Amino acid sequence: MLSRAQFITLDGIDGAGKSTNLAVIKEWFERNRLPVLFTREPGGTPVGEALRGLLLDPETQISLRTETLLMFAARQQHLESVILPTLQKGIHVVSDRFSDATFAYQGGGRGVPLSDIAGLEQWVQQGFQPDLTLLLDIPLEVSMSRITQTREKDRFEQEQADFFTRVRNVYLQRAQAAPQRYALIDSNRSLSDVKTAIEAALDRHFGI
Amino acid sequence: MLSRAQFITLDGIDGAGKSTNLAVIKEWFERNRLPVLFTREPGGTPVGEALRGLLLDPETQISLRTETLLMFAARQQHLESVILPTLQKGIHVVSDRFSDATFAYQGGGRGVPLSDIAGLEQWVQQGFQPDLTLLLDIPLEVSMSRITQTREKDRFEQEQADFFTRVRNVYLQRAQAAPQRYALIDSNRSLSDVKTAIEAALDRHFGI
Repeated sequence: MLSRAQFITLDGIDGAGKSTNLAVIKEWFERNRLPVLFTREPGGTPVGEALRGLLLDPETQISLRTETLLMFAARQQHLESVILPTLQKGIHVVSDRFSDATFAYQGGGRGVPLSDIAGLEQWVQQGFQPDLTLLLDIPLEVSMSRITQTREKDRFEQEQADFFTRVRNVYLQRAQAAPQRYALIDSNRSLSDVKTAIEAALDRHFGI
Repeated sequence: MLSRAQFITLDGIDGAGKSTNLAVIKEWFERNRLPVLFTREPGGTPVGEALRGLLLDPETQISLRTETLLMFAARQQHLESVILPTLQKGIHVVSDRFSDATFAYQGGGRGVPLSDIAGLEQWVQQGFQPDLTLLLDIPLEVSMSRITQTREKDRFEQEQADFFTRVRNVYLQRAQAAPQRYALIDSNRSLSDVKTAIEAALDRHFGI
């Protein structure tokens, strides 16, 4: 067993099955009787939830760079008031999304330079990283077919496909660049196969 | 006359007379028939005003580093949607507070490393700076005597004095380090003397 509390993140493109597999992770921690806190980004704190509301409200007019700063402001508070104090108490923390999502969505998807995002990541995290990131991956065709059933994609849907391709590529590049931190989970399989893969990754990480 | 629209900021410690002298600046622009937009920080945009509400609400529980990120998120939006487009139209902009206040209050006053603030300033402003900063300065004793009339300062009031000393020192250091950008206005004088000093600084800057 590992000697200190672990920070685990779950990430991946929309449609990869994050919600379903969050339940799998919860079950795994219950079965192994390990103390754990589940949290999410953006959000996780009162100010984070306020910012989440602002960020997800279609009426909010903010630029891409402002959005990126707000993501990291929420993350700063989440780290200081939830993640780090919980880990210090010896309780594991699982976060639904973390910085990888900012690199993938704001960076890959929407074009904020990855080096600019890395600058804010360093400002906020000062070297702190997840111990393990469970990255759910799914081919674009599958993800898109879940989103639309139309045969021919219109311009907006095509843009979405390009967008999600760029998002997915950044996720995969990051996993490739730091394979010791990521468990890449092929989520284009039966639910039970994906469940088995996640449980195996957690068993391996915790030495169970 | 200057050939392009100017970005002017008004700054200084609380009690230095910012509100009173904002009116002096407005009058000066009217008298000289120069097109100008007055704005303020934090705020200046819908998202900025929402963040201002969050930042000024005593119920909001946020860390110092989160506060600093939110200040710069508001500033990013303020720059992109108000300050830069207005200047591009040939309209001068006067902002009640800008980055100097973050250096002075979050940095000097509350202890965020000035180099960390400079990192965010660079991220957001990418080299953009006010053309002129009117810095109102006042001795601590005067500022404090406006705040409290008690003879002996209690611990909290003493902390406030130390706090404002540090804030003031950062303002003065910044003005000293870039004298071409700052007009240091001694605000410990009669209102009419201060008014004359501000008008002279504006005349000089605009070559009037």
